[in-house]
Amino acid sequence: MVELYYWPTIQGRGEFVRLALEAAGVPYRDVAREKNGMAAMQAVMDAAREQHPAYAPPVLRDGDLLIGQTANILLYLGRAHGLAPRAEAGRLWAHQLQLTIADVVAEAHDTHHPISVSHYYEDQKAAAKKRARDFIEARIPKYLGYFERVLENSKGANAVGARLSYVDLSLFQLVEGLRYAFPRAMARQEGNWPRLVALRDRVAQLPAIAAYLRSKRRVPFNEDGIFRRYPELDR
Amino acid sequence: MVELYYWPTIQGRGEFVRLALEAAGVPYRDVAREKNGMAAMQAVMDAAREQHPAYAPPVLRDGDLLIGQTANILLYLGRAHGLAPRAEAGRLWAHQLQLTIADVVAEAHDTHHPISVSHYYEDQKAAAKKRARDFIEARIPKYLGYFERVLENSKGANAVGARLSYVDLSLFQLVEGLRYAFPRAMARQEGNWPRLVALRDRVAQLPAIAAYLRSKRRVPFNEDGIFRRYPELDR
Repeated sequence: MVELYYWPTIQGRGEFVRLALEAAGVPYRDVAREKNGMAAMQAVMDAAREQHPAYAPPVLRDGDLLIGQTANILLYLGRAHGLAPRAEAGRLWAHQLQLTIADVVAEAHDTHHPISVSHYYEDQKAAAKKRARDFIEARIPKYLGYFERVLENSKGANAVGARLSYVDLSLFQLVEGLRYAFPRAMARQEGNWPRLVALRDRVAQLPAIAAYLRSKRRVPFNEDGIFRRYPELDR
Repeated sequence: MVELYYWPTIQGRGEFVRLALEAAGVPYRDVAREKNGMAAMQAVMDAAREQHPAYAPPVLRDGDLLIGQTANILLYLGRAHGLAPRAEAGRLWAHQLQLTIADVVAEAHDTHHPISVSHYYEDQKAAAKKRARDFIEARIPKYLGYFERVLENSKGANAVGARLSYVDLSLFQLVEGLRYAFPRAMARQEGNWPRLVALRDRVAQLPAIAAYLRSKRRVPFNEDGIFRRYPELDR
């Protein structure tokens, strides 16, 4: 069975992998949420034990393969489970979009940790307010406007090609995360991206995803994850 | 002929692509450095003209393919020009390392722009000093220590497999960039990563790379790029 290793109490970057596994109906273990799971997660990142240790979670094990980096895991799962186009051009395009999603996710994280991941939010709140303001006013419109144009260019309802891909799932999660972290800013801006919002709604209604979102396998958003609701950062 | 589109006056993320093209001996045009090149670069990112517009440079055009995101371009070039393992496990591992390099490159950028890419460095210098301190004390050792262990685990002199890959070229560029931006911090820390420094030296001596580095095609480091020498940020 496929094994996912990721922080057990947050959605974080692991959630993009969980959504792909759930949508494709791949049986998997969410190892770090099991008993002694954190030790197992540390072990797969140990260079003394693993030939290909990851720098950070999430990590996916599938047979002999141990794969790190969220977008790289999705590149693999997309091919193995039909969640990406098969032809090279479509496969690269899907991956390009995923890497752009990864960029905005990293920037969303840095709104609450603009100085250091090692320090508390409270110790960098002044810089966080400035960065969050720029993120809301400049970065969210630029990134989500870009994805809206991508959806406008795509032939069908999905981001890439005629079928559902991991990019659709990740765009769903991006909108969900931004809505959680910045509800007021998103409410004000969402009218600019009707295709993106419609895509989010369609993904939420996919039977496999709807069932997952209702289950305990979906960790709730919280203030330890990437998307955090700090009202003082939302404008 | 392959066309690279990237900001003409900086190394930036485009340099990872330039190094791969140069090492593989692929003839290419560095389009934005040609006459009217900036307009051509804008055009490939225009969703009204291109089906697959990139969010940001670098962009590579090869025949019908238009590819964005640095690591994605390298994924493509690695396969097309023998700069990555052919088997899936090695190909994914190389890409995973490249994505981790992309992460530390993004963090290096944010040392001088921790608040906003739209504002001047001078207007965020106080936060930059704090972020650079954390980057030097916590992030450089963690990332470069990781790559050192990867090199320790690899069988030969290269990061991935028996042959040169784009990962080796990118690690060269990472060390060069960090040395440029943080000469004092790197001088103090480099003894901790003998394999990484030896790899940097070997890449610099590859005939194709040595010739490139001496040529005018190599844009010098400067304070408009990702790696910037601001002495007040170096400790």
